[in-house]
Amino acid sequence: MTMRTERDSFGPVEVPADRFWGAQTARALGYFPQTPPRMPLAVIRVFGLQKAAAATANMELGVLEPRLGSAIVSAAERLAAGDLDAHFPLSIWQTGSGTQTNMCANEVLANVANVALGGALGDRAPVHPNDHVNRSQSSNDSFPAVMHIAALREVEARLLPALRELAEMLATRRAEAGRAGTMRLGRTHLNDAVPVPLAQMFATWGASLDHARTRLSRVAEDLRPLSQGGTAAGSGLNAPDGFAAAFCTALTARAGTRFTPAPVPAEGMAAHDALVALAQELRLTAQALARIATDIRHLASGPRAGLAELTLPEDGLSSSIMPGKRNATQAEAMLQISCRVAGNAATAEAANATSVFELNVCKPVLVAAVLDSVDLLSDALPRFVAFVAGVTPNAARMAETVERSLMLATALTPALGYDRVAEITREADACGATIREVVLAHDLMPEAQFDALIATITGRPLKETDR
Amino acid sequence: MTMRTERDSFGPVEVPADRFWGAQTARALGYFPQTPPRMPLAVIRVFGLQKAAAATANMELGVLEPRLGSAIVSAAERLAAGDLDAHFPLSIWQTGSGTQTNMCANEVLANVANVALGGALGDRAPVHPNDHVNRSQSSNDSFPAVMHIAALREVEARLLPALRELAEMLATRRAEAGRAGTMRLGRTHLNDAVPVPLAQMFATWGASLDHARTRLSRVAEDLRPLSQGGTAAGSGLNAPDGFAAAFCTALTARAGTRFTPAPVPAEGMAAHDALVALAQELRLTAQALARIATDIRHLASGPRAGLAELTLPEDGLSSSIMPGKRNATQAEAMLQISCRVAGNAATAEAANATSVFELNVCKPVLVAAVLDSVDLLSDALPRFVAFVAGVTPNAARMAETVERSLMLATALTPALGYDRVAEITREADACGATIREVVLAHDLMPEAQFDALIATITGRPLKETDR
Amino acid sequence: MTMRTERDSFGPVEVPADRFWGAQTARALGYFPQTPPRMPLAVIRVFGLQKAAAATANMELGVLEPRLGSAIVSAAERLAAGDLDAHFPLSIWQTGSGTQTNMCANEVLANVANVALGGALGDRAPVHPNDHVNRSQSSNDSFPAVMHIAALREVEARLLPALRELAEMLATRRAEAGRAGTMRLGRTHLNDAVPVPLAQMFATWGASLDHARTRLSRVAEDLRPLSQGGTAAGSGLNAPDGFAAAFCTALTARAGTRFTPAPVPAEGMAAHDALVALAQELRLTAQALARIATDIRHLASGPRAGLAELTLPEDGLSSSIMPGKRNATQAEAMLQISCRVAGNAATAEAANATSVFELNVCKPVLVAAVLDSVDLLSDALPRFVAFVAGVTPNAARMAETVERSLMLATALTPALGYDRVAEITREADACGATIREVVLAHDLMPEAQFDALIATITGRPLKETDR
Amino acid sequence: MTMRTERDSFGPVEVPADRFWGAQTARALGYFPQTPPRMPLAVIRVFGLQKAAAATANMELGVLEPRLGSAIVSAAERLAAGDLDAHFPLSIWQTGSGTQTNMCANEVLANVANVALGGALGDRAPVHPNDHVNRSQSSNDSFPAVMHIAALREVEARLLPALRELAEMLATRRAEAGRAGTMRLGRTHLNDAVPVPLAQMFATWGASLDHARTRLSRVAEDLRPLSQGGTAAGSGLNAPDGFAAAFCTALTARAGTRFTPAPVPAEGMAAHDALVALAQELRLTAQALARIATDIRHLASGPRAGLAELTLPEDGLSSSIMPGKRNATQAEAMLQISCRVAGNAATAEAANATSVFELNVCKPVLVAAVLDSVDLLSDALPRFVAFVAGVTPNAARMAETVERSLMLATALTPALGYDRVAEITREADACGATIREVVLAHDLMPEAQFDALIATITGRPLKETDR
Repeated sequence: MTMRTERDSFGPVEVPADRFWGAQTARALGYFPQTPPRMPLAVIRVFGLQKAAAATANMELGVLEPRLGSAIVSAAERLAAGDLDAHFPLSIWQTGSGTQTNMCANEVLANVANVALGGALGDRAPVHPNDHVNRSQSSNDSFPAVMHIAALREVEARLLPALRELAEMLATRRAEAGRAGTMRLGRTHLNDAVPVPLAQMFATWGASLDHARTRLSRVAEDLRPLSQGGTAAGSGLNAPDGFAAAFCTALTARAGTRFTPAPVPAEGMAAHDALVALAQELRLTAQALARIATDIRHLASGPRAGLAELTLPEDGLSSSIMPGKRNATQAEAMLQISCRVAGNAATAEAANATSVFELNVCKPVLVAAVLDSVDLLSDALPRFVAFVAGVTPNAARMAETVERSLMLATALTPALGYDRVAEITREADACGATIREVVLAHDLMPEAQFDALIATITGRPLKETDR
Repeated sequence: MTMRTERDSFGPVEVPADRFWGAQTARALGYFPQTPPRMPLAVIRVFGLQKAAAATANMELGVLEPRLGSAIVSAAERLAAGDLDAHFPLSIWQTGSGTQTNMCANEVLANVANVALGGALGDRAPVHPNDHVNRSQSSNDSFPAVMHIAALREVEARLLPALRELAEMLATRRAEAGRAGTMRLGRTHLNDAVPVPLAQMFATWGASLDHARTRLSRVAEDLRPLSQGGTAAGSGLNAPDGFAAAFCTALTARAGTRFTPAPVPAEGMAAHDALVALAQELRLTAQALARIATDIRHLASGPRAGLAELTLPEDGLSSSIMPGKRNATQAEAMLQISCRVAGNAATAEAANATSVFELNVCKPVLVAAVLDSVDLLSDALPRFVAFVAGVTPNAARMAETVERSLMLATALTPALGYDRVAEITREADACGATIREVVLAHDLMPEAQFDALIATITGRPLKETDR
Repeated sequence: MTMRTERDSFGPVEVPADRFWGAQTARALGYFPQTPPRMPLAVIRVFGLQKAAAATANMELGVLEPRLGSAIVSAAERLAAGDLDAHFPLSIWQTGSGTQTNMCANEVLANVANVALGGALGDRAPVHPNDHVNRSQSSNDSFPAVMHIAALREVEARLLPALRELAEMLATRRAEAGRAGTMRLGRTHLNDAVPVPLAQMFATWGASLDHARTRLSRVAEDLRPLSQGGTAAGSGLNAPDGFAAAFCTALTARAGTRFTPAPVPAEGMAAHDALVALAQELRLTAQALARIATDIRHLASGPRAGLAELTLPEDGLSSSIMPGKRNATQAEAMLQISCRVAGNAATAEAANATSVFELNVCKPVLVAAVLDSVDLLSDALPRFVAFVAGVTPNAARMAETVERSLMLATALTPALGYDRVAEITREADACGATIREVVLAHDLMPEAQFDALIATITGRPLKETDR
Repeated sequence: MTMRTERDSFGPVEVPADRFWGAQTARALGYFPQTPPRMPLAVIRVFGLQKAAAATANMELGVLEPRLGSAIVSAAERLAAGDLDAHFPLSIWQTGSGTQTNMCANEVLANVANVALGGALGDRAPVHPNDHVNRSQSSNDSFPAVMHIAALREVEARLLPALRELAEMLATRRAEAGRAGTMRLGRTHLNDAVPVPLAQMFATWGASLDHARTRLSRVAEDLRPLSQGGTAAGSGLNAPDGFAAAFCTALTARAGTRFTPAPVPAEGMAAHDALVALAQELRLTAQALARIATDIRHLASGPRAGLAELTLPEDGLSSSIMPGKRNATQAEAMLQISCRVAGNAATAEAANATSVFELNVCKPVLVAAVLDSVDLLSDALPRFVAFVAGVTPNAARMAETVERSLMLATALTPALGYDRVAEITREADACGATIREVVLAHDLMPEAQFDALIATITGRPLKETDR
């Protein structure tokens, strides 16, 4: 491997000749464990947006020479576009402020800019990593800003649309089931309860998702205020007046979604409650998805000794020892993802709990946990949508369980009273009869009245207040 | 103990003569572990509101005779007022739908109503626990409704005001510190960073609390929709048309805060995402409070070998072996509370994760965990406010640390460049000198320029975007 | 309320005349939130053992006058016996070292001893709370010692025997099922798999419990080493040589279980890993119990639309709206307990994570969480044993599901190969036939060979290596 | 990309020509999200050991033709050696039994074996993936076996030695500090307490690690029993008598560490308590490491406004805005790792909590979480050892804080009594004097006696029971 010499305020250090990073990155590579995960690409590329917006603001405010600033912006655009991914070798296991990744961005962009301006790698001039690329910035404010930007973009661009797709499919299925008037036996305490419309199942799943989307959208809004401009320890030192506003304007234009200066920039450095709130909502969202997966797993259990109310779509996968066995494999993948998303939330909470004084120092692990959850859910959802869409009701089985249910008797209580109906139910249970048989055997009411009462259950549309 | 006989559909059972509960409660007492905690009083009394609102709606809709309904309402008002607390003996360790507590409410109110109507305890007539008190209801919808009502009331009436009191005190202290122009040394990575206004510390704490209050208020709103009217398994069976709306109207009038029918009542039975979201926000709020507590603990450390920037209020407590030792005892109580609130959130999450089919069956433990957190924070906050208000800055110590700080040099970078300043800093560190001494010794700039640059830090007001 | 005056080094304070606590306790009562839980009785009474053992060691080593020491021992024996519970009013929300509860013990015992020696409450002489009752001790070492002693005693005396009772019952049921030769259909991925002996279900549950008991016993052993003797900050200051050993000898005699001096007493003050390890094992144990509960809940689901392989014992409890409905109520109580035990483990972990320097300051909340879990499991287990013992297999249903299962075909693969058997299975599935019917229809093997192969499954005893 | 055709019982499917996997793997690739992480290499390579041991046992027991068996063993040895890593493309997001990875191993080894026997890729003969490579096995028993083997090997080979290295370094530093007789001021509640030997700090850290290693070693032992031989659902179907024992013998020989047949193989499929117990101990171990990291971070805080008792080793890294700033970067990396390890434990617990019936279906995510934690700690420890070894005490600062400490007064209580000493302490605090000055000013004792009492603290060796 051919090497070149980079230097920083500590002296010279060797770097692979074809890589654009500099001395601080090289020192970090040798010093920290390089165990996965690497710093997420979503973070690295957003540094492109952040450095471009900072350089733009610096030029506007007259603290960065346009020739240098333009070169930085061009380099940063390449970074944002993914052209420079290979020049960010560090894992998330570095100092807890993310300083080494910020310095890597400063070094890479300085080198790219200097080459564009006719210089060589390692020159540190005319563009200096700290004095120009990092102008008006600190890792203290830049890394938190990038955390917010990256998380918001991924949630907006990938997760919310994927969840909406699932919600829309569920709404379609709810409407279909409503039109078909299919009833199935509800189960409370896992046991036979009263019949409910099949549409209720889709409505319940859909309502959980609607709430999850609402909560996610709300906490995502809390990511718009950025600490950028707070520089070291929130002091704002070395950033010109108006920097935060100019930065956010430039960033909003590039990012395609709105960002604003945080009223108290120091707060977004000292802790990351907004991101932890997001991590928690991701866990709750994943729990809602796991619930759908598990309801399907149970309702599709069988084929012969289970509930068998739903039939799974064919997936071409089977057991290694039991030929022909079919399982809810996609649902299990989602279930597993929910476990990991729960763990990621625990990681984010633990990271946030270490905060003391002006700076939380578990930033890289925190943002990586949040982005991992967004990534997993966003990737898995399209497949899960296809899976849920492919699950089909076994109407005959549903009708049979409704017909034989003892809990149909609940419809008789307004007429007969709770205590009398309890006796009927117990008698039917003991002798294996239907409720109808017991009621008629004891001549408790005319069959027509019985039919009318039972019809209040079995012909019941979805109970809902509005739509 | 004198006993009387109560009965239910399973037969007779003995009950203490001076207690109003009935057979289902008595059976549950003998069957389940009675280990603490008892069902929270906040739940029990809210059952008074819920049963009164249900009876009112039933009378309005013509399915409950006014004579019986009025007697139920009167009894329920006594329950809501706390007069019947002693008649709810059960712990939260019961069936996971909260059915035994709902039945206890039905039984107690039936007995109270029957006595008021001239009958005797145990008559089950004219007011029957299931046929009249529980009319148009199921535990499936009543217990979830009570969970929401109890949690929302406690958050609105106790927690949010207590948090507001803290926020206001912090705002006052921030303004005071701002007027005084006190600077202290910021600390990042726990280490000396640049000076920041003392006001920034109060602003940071206050901003965290403001965000916590916003998030709490938002998730509290999600508790307004109630599953009441869904009855068994969300089917709405045995509740007349319009019941949910009439119930919510009556409840809103009694509760003094607005409740609405949930669009899909089944969803609020199958899982409790809204309450888990609240539990999570409570954890995050407690984490923000613990952060204030811990910042104070560290900044008040000493008296002689610590940071000693803050002085604790006198509390009259000391070590059992080290006479005269003073500690941040109130801060430690808050720190401990934050650990328990975190555990309560984990309990709520675990409870919610057990959901299958139409009914989550970990409701009592879930709502008890949420209410415990609200209770702890609400009780502790007034004392914590007094504690934080009593903490005083040690201005001399703060000024001394600012003066001697090496990181003052950061103000020189726009003039000298990052690399040159790094050398100055290292030289000052090595020889124990101040930055001023090194700069002047090397004749790097005139003293007047040095003073002007340093003044950009030490005379710096709080960096903030708006207020 | 009649009051008397107590005093401490801060001055006088009023105390209810009939209570034995002193000034530090009174100050704490007014200063801290008195929200539940109170300090657990298991902790308070163990302070009786601890103070008696300390006084004994102090007398032996000649640093405590026998007249005073004997009076302290007598008072401490009353405390250990539960006679003085009413004199410990504090909640766990106090300083994080448990100092106020240690001081309360010192004050109560000094008062009791002084009265026994002819003095009056509040005299602080001849027995002084700090100079005599707390002689050779600090809260720093006494509270951690009490945490270990209390937890070990509860685990040994209550939890392990309760778990053993369940394990023995499961072993009995395993043996019964083995003798009966009952087979049921195994379920993997919730779906029909191959038949397994019913005994395997009990064996699986029992093996989980055996492992849980082993792990619990091991971590309980780690509680025997005590920090007592380390006094302030682990220094051992003011404790005579040999104190730790003399203390442990005296304590072991009183406690009936062995305790030893910790090699590095400071370690047991700075953090509480041994107790967190216990909290974690309690969570894992509760998870194993919840698994049994949930397997039963699913296998007993029905009565008509569920798996219906098990029948629940009658409990006399029912739905408030669905008359005659029966549920696995006791199993749900256990499921809820497992959620709380999980939350308690999270509390203990959070408490331990706050450690800095020589003293963890979340001790009361940590020990309360651990003891709550032990208490809940110990109380619930006897009822759970009765419940599980009362669950009965529905042999007819089990035989039917075995007979109709498609996965019987797995027994044919050694003869026909995986791919051919997969075709058979799919054909049977498609046409609703049994495997037997398909095999014979295609003349794939003589019926006798088929029977012999199938018998390798259906006649299969429990697969086990040893017992 | 050139493709070839593979087939399974569902039909043909296209596979990249240069990859050895077969149809089930290809189907899984198209069906599941391929979001990272890939199935850990530690799992994949252990499948080589597992398949080799199974083939050996099958040959021994006469159910696998030696020609085929030997070819399988040779292929499996290549897999174990890492030669076939590139042929395992699947992520952990698959069916929860790990079936697709087991099938991938079956397919890859069948192809490799068939080619070695003169056939072509895709032949499925003479070696068939299910009938021969998977002979006597199910994913149900093979994947759990591999989970145990992989976790035990990583813990034994990497983590425990790395922890031992740290423990040994700490023991060395403890001895050095003991020989030097350095004292520093202990801190309880973060505040000045009595002086303690510097050796105590190393002893405390070392004791925590010793306990962590003991607990880890114990739970690692619980991984030796394997479910292999249980085949489908624990039934043992299609495995010859003696298979489990023969397998474990062959495996032990290959793995270099002992494995045994689990007494109840079904238990290790239904849940993974042993691995969760490991995950929990990993979290507790990481918490102990984070405690060391945090103690160092605080004790090295400064350089001028912090505690400054320790000096950090030079790492060549600095702030992007504050030139020359030095931080405990390696300690922060460890702190971050502890957050992720905590999250991994939460993932494992959540995964285990989903168990129902005969098979837990969150196996891949569970084992990946455990292995990630082992990997992170094992990789980070050598660097952390170097870091801790490089931290140097600032003896002058330590001596100064001891000298000025008010808590020296604790040594006077045996002579003067607690209450009198409390007054002395408060006077010294108020007037900024030392304890010596106050005691002598009031003529409370001769200076020689004062010196002798103080020497009981400041000359105090490490309090320890044994070593």
